[in-house]
Amino acid sequence: MFELTRRDALLGTMSTLAVGTMGNAFAASPLANKQAPAFFRYKVGDIEITAVNDGVSRMPITDDFVSNVPKEQVQKTLDALFMERDFYAGPYNPIFLNTGSKLVLVDTGTGEAALTSSNGLNGRLLMNMAAAGLSPNDVDMVILTHFHGDHVNGILKADGSLAFPNAEILAPAKEAAFWLDDGEMNRASSARVKATFQNARRVMTPEALKRLRTYEPGKEILSGVSAVETAGHTPGHCSLTVSSGNKSVFVQGDVTHASFLFARNPGWHFMLDIDPVAAEATRRKVYDMLVAERMVVQGFHYPFPSIAHVEKSGDGYREILVPFSPIL
Amino acid sequence: MFELTRRDALLGTMSTLAVGTMGNAFAASPLANKQAPAFFRYKVGDIEITAVNDGVSRMPITDDFVSNVPKEQVQKTLDALFMERDFYAGPYNPIFLNTGSKLVLVDTGTGEAALTSSNGLNGRLLMNMAAAGLSPNDVDMVILTHFHGDHVNGILKADGSLAFPNAEILAPAKEAAFWLDDGEMNRASSARVKATFQNARRVMTPEALKRLRTYEPGKEILSGVSAVETAGHTPGHCSLTVSSGNKSVFVQGDVTHASFLFARNPGWHFMLDIDPVAAEATRRKVYDMLVAERMVVQGFHYPFPSIAHVEKSGDGYREILVPFSPIL
Repeated sequence: MFELTRRDALLGTMSTLAVGTMGNAFAASPLANKQAPAFFRYKVGDIEITAVNDGVSRMPITDDFVSNVPKEQVQKTLDALFMERDFYAGPYNPIFLNTGSKLVLVDTGTGEAALTSSNGLNGRLLMNMAAAGLSPNDVDMVILTHFHGDHVNGILKADGSLAFPNAEILAPAKEAAFWLDDGEMNRASSARVKATFQNARRVMTPEALKRLRTYEPGKEILSGVSAVETAGHTPGHCSLTVSSGNKSVFVQGDVTHASFLFARNPGWHFMLDIDPVAAEATRRKVYDMLVAERMVVQGFHYPFPSIAHVEKSGDGYREILVPFSPIL
Repeated sequence: MFELTRRDALLGTMSTLAVGTMGNAFAASPLANKQAPAFFRYKVGDIEITAVNDGVSRMPITDDFVSNVPKEQVQKTLDALFMERDFYAGPYNPIFLNTGSKLVLVDTGTGEAALTSSNGLNGRLLMNMAAAGLSPNDVDMVILTHFHGDHVNGILKADGSLAFPNAEILAPAKEAAFWLDDGEMNRASSARVKATFQNARRVMTPEALKRLRTYEPGKEILSGVSAVETAGHTPGHCSLTVSSGNKSVFVQGDVTHASFLFARNPGWHFMLDIDPVAAEATRRKVYDMLVAERMVVQGFHYPFPSIAHVEKSGDGYREILVPFSPIL
């Protein structure tokens, strides 16, 4: 009988078979000891977007990490998120836009040199680009949202040469004017801000300056890609809208830092917001728009793959990460 | 002056330079038109875990999709999640455990044949394994949590041969006894359940049966991997705990289907829960434990990469997905 045969196989002889004949007959597969390459693709109409992870930060939670909230409250929040309470793991996610005729990189990550200095924690863009089949030589345009180091340092390779030698570099006009102005540098409000001025000079080598062009908020940078004024985090900070067909995505830059802290708590004044009051106002305005429009947001500091919808939640906003899809 | 030079470069001549010399000088990078391979690694003590995505389902939201909740409420919930309201995109995520001496696959996905029948939506395990550097021939052991098709079909390749020819196949004793018993098949409570009996017979070919062994809940299957009784979804459904050093993860199988619907609403009776009342009781018991122990859960139907912590939220539980980490 079929039934008996099955049950006999199952409960009787089978139980003793496998171990002896197969259990140790094959060498163990070696441990990989490394993470998967991290890139994620989706389409906005005809435009193909590839989010390419550059790694994460590991910043200590200092007293001024959020200037208007006690350190203990930040730590408690991290704890509730099952994260390390004394360090902030802020993700870095540059994106590529392939319009079919142009390959555009938005923000450049922490730079190749960081791969060594961070022990592999960040500086991973070029490595992950290679895994994604994207060649630095094919990049036609780099668009910067602002001049913080984690957005501009990737302009240079570890040897100081241009990482994207064939790309023009587009920066918000007001942002570039501010960070490259020596008078502004001399009036820097803190050592941290002064260091950003100095870093801008380090990165904007003569070769980089040759490729620099500026863009204005409210205008189209290239077909389907428009700039939006979102100042506060830095004086000339811009975001982008990417639209094709009836689809669009809001590429926010640093309107918020990591969503799980700063979209959920838009009133928190992050230490890297240069004008925290303006940054908060921008944040609330942008996020109210995202909620009202049910618009997808691409967040440089969102958890990889860094794309989400947003819902109102208490006094803040909660990100609903777009789930992985095996097909575009 | 440095300042003037910078500003001049920025606001003057540079703006006109780049377009002419570089804008169209290089061929466009081709669109990739395909998603990244989907695997994700983490460590539990000395054990390396690789979650390998097998794709997603696309099931219509029928009247009985959740038997004790109106279809409209399910649709409204999906809508609030910014998902298609008429289809359920349920992720499939088998995992590999590499203990250093054994390579173990937990659940096998929808099977290679599904890659064609689903137009690439699922059946992607072997493809993603290859991307992860995992060879089917190196798999020493397949552990099944239960006998639903999306967990067992991957035992076979599209040609009907064994996908993991050197692996023994371990199934919960009660589960195997139930699904391979012809008497039980004849008493099947619905056409859907009957089809699961028939599918079990299709997959458990003579070659597969030769490799079948059973395991008992409450016992260690191999060093660091123990079985936990979690019946309800199916009569002999088991989960696993994987522990090494002071770390552990709960590999839940189908204690919940997709977290965003069924962990958040543990009282929802999913159409694939064979004993929905027992399934709900198991769900609440397991999730109360996960919350109390602050334990990581690996969910076969969680969004890729399918690993999360859990917090209590209203009458249910909310998953807090573990963020991507570039290093293990």
